[in-house]
Amino acid sequence: MKKDVLIIGAGGVAQVVAHKCAQNNDVLGEIHIASRTLSKCEAILESVREKGAMKVEGVLKAHQVDAMDTAAVAQLIRDTGAQIVINVGSAFVNMYVLDACIETGAAYIDTAIHEDPAKICETPPWYANYEWKKRDLCAEKGVTAILGAGFDPGVVNAFARFAIDQMDEVKSIDIVDINAGSHGKYFATNFDPEINFREFTGTVYYWEDQQWKETSMFASGRDWDLPVVGTQRAYQSGHDEVHSLSANYPQADVRFWMGFGEHYINVFTVLQSLGLLSEQPVKTAEGLEVVPLKVVKAVLPDPSSLAPDYTGKTCIGDLVKGVKDGEEVEMFVYNVADHKEAYNEVGSQGISYTAGVPPVAAAMLVASGDWDAKTMKNVEELDPKPFFTILDDIGLPTRVKDAKGDRAWNA
Amino acid sequence: MKKDVLIIGAGGVAQVVAHKCAQNNDVLGEIHIASRTLSKCEAILESVREKGAMKVEGVLKAHQVDAMDTAAVAQLIRDTGAQIVINVGSAFVNMYVLDACIETGAAYIDTAIHEDPAKICETPPWYANYEWKKRDLCAEKGVTAILGAGFDPGVVNAFARFAIDQMDEVKSIDIVDINAGSHGKYFATNFDPEINFREFTGTVYYWEDQQWKETSMFASGRDWDLPVVGTQRAYQSGHDEVHSLSANYPQADVRFWMGFGEHYINVFTVLQSLGLLSEQPVKTAEGLEVVPLKVVKAVLPDPSSLAPDYTGKTCIGDLVKGVKDGEEVEMFVYNVADHKEAYNEVGSQGISYTAGVPPVAAAMLVASGDWDAKTMKNVEELDPKPFFTILDDIGLPTRVKDAKGDRAWNA
Repeated sequence: MKKDVLIIGAGGVAQVVAHKCAQNNDVLGEIHIASRTLSKCEAILESVREKGAMKVEGVLKAHQVDAMDTAAVAQLIRDTGAQIVINVGSAFVNMYVLDACIETGAAYIDTAIHEDPAKICETPPWYANYEWKKRDLCAEKGVTAILGAGFDPGVVNAFARFAIDQMDEVKSIDIVDINAGSHGKYFATNFDPEINFREFTGTVYYWEDQQWKETSMFASGRDWDLPVVGTQRAYQSGHDEVHSLSANYPQADVRFWMGFGEHYINVFTVLQSLGLLSEQPVKTAEGLEVVPLKVVKAVLPDPSSLAPDYTGKTCIGDLVKGVKDGEEVEMFVYNVADHKEAYNEVGSQGISYTAGVPPVAAAMLVASGDWDAKTMKNVEELDPKPFFTILDDIGLPTRVKDAKGDRAWNA
Repeated sequence: MKKDVLIIGAGGVAQVVAHKCAQNNDVLGEIHIASRTLSKCEAILESVREKGAMKVEGVLKAHQVDAMDTAAVAQLIRDTGAQIVINVGSAFVNMYVLDACIETGAAYIDTAIHEDPAKICETPPWYANYEWKKRDLCAEKGVTAILGAGFDPGVVNAFARFAIDQMDEVKSIDIVDINAGSHGKYFATNFDPEINFREFTGTVYYWEDQQWKETSMFASGRDWDLPVVGTQRAYQSGHDEVHSLSANYPQADVRFWMGFGEHYINVFTVLQSLGLLSEQPVKTAEGLEVVPLKVVKAVLPDPSSLAPDYTGKTCIGDLVKGVKDGEEVEMFVYNVADHKEAYNEVGSQGISYTAGVPPVAAAMLVASGDWDAKTMKNVEELDPKPFFTILDDIGLPTRVKDAKGDRAWNA
């Protein structure tokens, strides 16, 4: 059954979501997009029209909404009749939008954990601080809420589930995210700098020996030899999916590794050491209160502006180790995406593409009923196979590399 | 004759000026200090009292004034009866304070060129943009105005004059400023970061072949083998004194070289490349207009906070080349100062010390009549010998190194 979609947000990821919803509007129905700035929504819809992305004729409409105003979002859901809300707005708005979905009964899908603007890196597991507090309420009201359904978190959670399903016992899950692309700028972040840096300024939590352990950013690095992108150095980083996978597979070690070049680390280190990545306001000599991180964001390139010149590939995957029939086994489940191809298809760079395609696949599975769970779920709690099948079709094919070779997941 | 002094400003340099005025209040008279923030003035006077710096009993008084309000400064000059104003406030206030001196007839002394907050690195010669426009008025009214009487500009201008006076012809003046000290922080500037960085973000102007030439910061570097501090790398930088020395000695090449370590250059390069050193406001996502450079200033250590832990020495001097009796000659005129000694004496680090002692020497020469020029002068237009004599006495001895050896300037 076709289900109408309301997209919240109008950044680079929202652009991908809008294009992908349009390309699949025979499964999804009306496409509504809403953000604080109406003109940004309209610009996205204009790009959808330019590419002729709508598969069948249908509704494509922009709205203005303050996503931190639950009543306003609920009203918009009622006004548009949306049955699925894909929230790709700022991570600060999640709980307000989720509340609006619970209130109206619409299905909720997001791609990143909720954050309080005033706090960095809260106590683990992060989902327990906000989202999971609403789990019982979702179940009680029969509201589908799929948390963290981007690439990482999202597809990588499904990768883990897929590998674990083929083992008798799981021992470790290492998620590796490498962007081997080049944007040609002196420095830029691939998504909202505020969220990007917030991710790296706090304690790095990881799950080992059935307990939370801590390290700090760039303190723990290793080289990974990966398909297509080759050998790449990645560093343990704090990331959403560690906080749900560790709850679902407490017997496994769960770590997240992000690739960084020396130049990125140098710029990051300078900014952080000076205090310019702080989310706490400072006062200028003139008495103006200002959050340094917001100023850094203001001077950096808009991530969506990187798309036209972005070249190269990303490789994101899970190395899962475990036991099968009494033998130690391991499997690397992964995807490789190309920045240029993403831009040519939807006008966005590869990082936005990998983040924006999966929630649309999730929405299609909610529409088809496969993932219409009528409660709150993290992605590893859902069947990965229909997810991979859709992702194969719509631009993010899943591959597997293990003792038997390198192949499509269903080969 | 004793002359009463009004100090404008309450930063690290003002602290040195206050201490040195107090130590010489048998020549100078009452000591008044005024800035936007009364408590900062009071803290400086408290430190003067703590060190028992007053040579003879006398007046020591703090005032609040907006130094950009010429009428208010003029009124304060009248109220205090100050005959000499030592302006060590922000470089943005110079012209307002100078106007107040011209209005009241008080002598004016400053240590750095006037700057317009909205402009970086105006057309050379910089003095012609603001200060020199008032030269005729000073002469007409018989007002003494000594421009740039800190260390550099200031003492280095006197160094040049001293060397040139012993030659038949001057060919080049290279001013070298090395801070071989260590403050133990990740990164800090030695004086107001806003002024510090503004100095290095624009075009680097220098005078060669009787014309202005341009380079950019860190583009032109060389190693200097210097007394006490040894071999140090320094880079051509834009600096005030190049703009007056080139006018007074147009036949000489005039360059300024500032020492920088690799770490400083890295931090500076990152900040500048990102646009964080810009004096032009940016707008945050929330719509707040803010000048990035002012935020960088807000997160960096207060330069005066560096003093207690600062160790090591500075070496600042002029390599002057010319002709004497038909032979090519060269002379390095210099001073070496020690951060720790400065702190022990006046509670400030060496950079503030070298900047703050010379204007007090200049004030003493105005009081004695030697430098009471009754018009506007740059330091090289005044007799350097009485200046060196006082500087020898009050903490900044001048030395000379040439073919005849390394010795006191008057040995």
